[in-house]
Amino acid sequence: MSVKGFNLIGQAEVAGSNPALWGIAAATGERLEPGFGGATLDDLDRACALAREAFNPYRETSLETRARFLERIAENILELGDTLVERCMAETGLPRARVEGERGRTMGQLRLFASVVREGSFQDARIDRAMPERTPLPRADLRLRNIPLGPVAVFGASNFPLAFSVAGGDSASALAAGCPVVVKAHSAHPGTSELVGQAVQRAVRECELPEGVFSLLFDSGREIAQALVADPRIKAVGFTGSRVGGVALMNIAAARPEPIPVYAEMSSINPVVLLPGALQERGAQIGQAFVSSLALGAGQFCTNPGLVIAVDGEGLQNFIRSASEALGKVAAQTMLTPGIYRSYCHGVHSLESNARVQPLAKGLAGGINQGQAALFMVAAEDFLDDYRLREEVFGSSSLVVRCANIVQVRQVIDVLEGQLTAALHLSPSDHRAARALIADLELKVGRILINGFGTGVEVAHAMVHGGPFPATSDSRTTSVGSLAIERFLRPVSYQDLPQALLPPALQDSNPEGIARRVEGQMVL
Amino acid sequence: MSVKGFNLIGQAEVAGSNPALWGIAAATGERLEPGFGGATLDDLDRACALAREAFNPYRETSLETRARFLERIAENILELGDTLVERCMAETGLPRARVEGERGRTMGQLRLFASVVREGSFQDARIDRAMPERTPLPRADLRLRNIPLGPVAVFGASNFPLAFSVAGGDSASALAAGCPVVVKAHSAHPGTSELVGQAVQRAVRECELPEGVFSLLFDSGREIAQALVADPRIKAVGFTGSRVGGVALMNIAAARPEPIPVYAEMSSINPVVLLPGALQERGAQIGQAFVSSLALGAGQFCTNPGLVIAVDGEGLQNFIRSASEALGKVAAQTMLTPGIYRSYCHGVHSLESNARVQPLAKGLAGGINQGQAALFMVAAEDFLDDYRLREEVFGSSSLVVRCANIVQVRQVIDVLEGQLTAALHLSPSDHRAARALIADLELKVGRILINGFGTGVEVAHAMVHGGPFPATSDSRTTSVGSLAIERFLRPVSYQDLPQALLPPALQDSNPEGIARRVEGQMVL
Repeated sequence: MSVKGFNLIGQAEVAGSNPALWGIAAATGERLEPGFGGATLDDLDRACALAREAFNPYRETSLETRARFLERIAENILELGDTLVERCMAETGLPRARVEGERGRTMGQLRLFASVVREGSFQDARIDRAMPERTPLPRADLRLRNIPLGPVAVFGASNFPLAFSVAGGDSASALAAGCPVVVKAHSAHPGTSELVGQAVQRAVRECELPEGVFSLLFDSGREIAQALVADPRIKAVGFTGSRVGGVALMNIAAARPEPIPVYAEMSSINPVVLLPGALQERGAQIGQAFVSSLALGAGQFCTNPGLVIAVDGEGLQNFIRSASEALGKVAAQTMLTPGIYRSYCHGVHSLESNARVQPLAKGLAGGINQGQAALFMVAAEDFLDDYRLREEVFGSSSLVVRCANIVQVRQVIDVLEGQLTAALHLSPSDHRAARALIADLELKVGRILINGFGTGVEVAHAMVHGGPFPATSDSRTTSVGSLAIERFLRPVSYQDLPQALLPPALQDSNPEGIARRVEGQMVL
Repeated sequence: MSVKGFNLIGQAEVAGSNPALWGIAAATGERLEPGFGGATLDDLDRACALAREAFNPYRETSLETRARFLERIAENILELGDTLVERCMAETGLPRARVEGERGRTMGQLRLFASVVREGSFQDARIDRAMPERTPLPRADLRLRNIPLGPVAVFGASNFPLAFSVAGGDSASALAAGCPVVVKAHSAHPGTSELVGQAVQRAVRECELPEGVFSLLFDSGREIAQALVADPRIKAVGFTGSRVGGVALMNIAAARPEPIPVYAEMSSINPVVLLPGALQERGAQIGQAFVSSLALGAGQFCTNPGLVIAVDGEGLQNFIRSASEALGKVAAQTMLTPGIYRSYCHGVHSLESNARVQPLAKGLAGGINQGQAALFMVAAEDFLDDYRLREEVFGSSSLVVRCANIVQVRQVIDVLEGQLTAALHLSPSDHRAARALIADLELKVGRILINGFGTGVEVAHAMVHGGPFPATSDSRTTSVGSLAIERFLRPVSYQDLPQALLPPALQDSNPEGIARRVEGQMVL
């Protein structure tokens, strides 16, 4: 397989006739061939029509068929070999180890959802048997299962060209749920997107699924994105990106004649709270670990620690000294796109030109598109007073908020918007304060972690990669981990259906052998 | 306890200083004393402040404390005795048996949620243990539980003055989840609302809970409703009512700086599909049963069968003859409010003046505010052509859509909007056609039932009282049954927390003894 510059609409390769876009070599800013002709509204219509057509046969496939399909996608991605890895490195500036690691993560996600499908409890099968003798009224036989919502629009992220993109977590969980997907490729990595798209397209063919299960569209502007979310055949949206972009899609979805759910992961500064005991015990050590997390991948993680909230004192001085020293040695790193680099420079400049903000350290300067790490400090009073300091700077910049005491730490937490993660660094002497802070932070975030940083997002059953607005558009969900499948499901109740008309999950004989809830009790 | 005309704000009784509203005797149209002074924005602010203040202590109560609180509310409602029953009968025109039955249902819901709380699996506790030896990277200890969203605004329904009102399903499930509630009483039954509110208020006191767990506000206009949904301390909304009202609240919630979920149950015409085998076998019998369901409670059920889709033939003629005959004997019944009565008359008049619609039968005429049942017929072609025929007429009016064949039945289903329920009447010879229809209907409704009518909504684990828009604002949810609690929860992940800082549900010792998912597998 090779990069051809085509939209993938069902099993067809379609040369888009709208203005083209090109991949850009992150390291040089040069165009990568070929160009990708933008999809037209007719192309979009065709993709949505195929998706709708595929929906019923696809959702009625057996659990095993669907699981095998997900596994086949993973195998096909691996088979793309260095063609994929090298194109992805060129388009994103990410190093080989990261790209290969992310490929492994992507395959792991697909395989996790294959296991989730096989296990079957995502269907939430429930049985409340008839009680014909009940007085004053008999009870009907009631059974419930989850069904997929319908075709899903997926928007790839710039910062995870594989794991949150064409065959990333949103697509994997939607396909696992039984939803066809129409992906709008992120313009930051079109070649990577097409290659992965080819792997999915081939898996559809190999598994003899209806072609509309998957389509991939390119667009140099916003027309396709907006029309996709507005299309009546689309029943849910997965998005990872900016707050502005996510809110725009939320508004389109809410204004439809039939509003649909949007799962947008948008913006987070991921506060790190340093408690006095921890600072006193190991302030310098935390400073070093913090800089490692901050600089990882040029700081281009949704969970990057963009804010440090700490109680002032000798321990904090140790933290600052150590973090500043470590940061001074951080090499500049190529950022994902020229646009992201410019935004980062703008964000850092805003902090530099804010009179209340004290610069602490800068990383080494770099070349084209290379982000220079930066660390700043501000007094809690000033932070509370200036809402601009709470905005995300996407990249390896962070701000230390110096607090006089725990009361002020809680005030700072109180003004924060919703976040993906919060980290607490503590020693046993901090437990009492930590208890109150955890209760505060729970209401602000999707994940709380102790003595670590949020940049590693494990793909697991107990993971929440989500959080209150604006971290995401829907705090009830996660975009990482097995729970992500629930975003694309809804319950349906079946009353007094003859066995022959019941779906397998609800038949008395339980042919899928799944765990079910009978009269409210789990039966394995 | 007695009706006093007060807003209930925490433990206080507050005479509202905005324009008053009165209960209206449904049977006579006369005012019932006392008047209820409307809540001011200051009253609302106080209720929301108390709710926010109560949230943390309330959500941290033990499962047993919360379960006992729900049971105590049920006991206190029963203790209101005939004071409640008679006031409710007067305000709604509903007969004693129905009011007493609904009171039992309301208590049953509260007790069901007490059992759901005790059982504990609503917390969805998950544990993925650390793998310190894993390569290339160790895995952290990850644990997940659901936490409540925050204070919830509840809007009582006109048609279920007890079961979908002050202490109805929305309040019961929100309180079970750990959310304080602020109820905006429906103006159709203020006295009933206040009495039930007193029962809840007393239970808060008796269980020594923070007073802000419950408040109840009255308003003769829309100011309080709108301000309540816009208030930043409110984190979710439960509503049962009209499409116009529900969509207005959805829009307010979506436009907030922090958008919040709205669970609005709004509009449904609940198609009943009559298949040829069933019609031939027992058309006349189905006609009688249909009229019983249609006329129940003056047709004032969300699940009232407002549309019949049937294949033409001798069987359908039998159905029509029998249904028309039965309908001709249906006594007019007092409707809930003069406004609902006027809307019903307007809806029936629209059908009568539609040249394509054929009147089949009318019930007996009645007196003040008494709705006269009505049955109409239209050809499928005309139904497909006229979207107005798909709008809900709230009351005991229904429309038979005569189809030439199953293909046309499917076309009619295809143009329907989202519905709460669909019923299929079939005999074994219809199974083949039914299979395709069930697949179609699944995508349109929350509940499919065979050889029955949707008007009985069992409070059970496998119930879905929900469905795609505009049946509800969020097809992923149900407002009846144990699953309703999930509307008010969101997951939080805890990484590497020491045992002492973990919530009970996630501690190794499992002090609550709840079922948990460990490494993805349910452990009871």
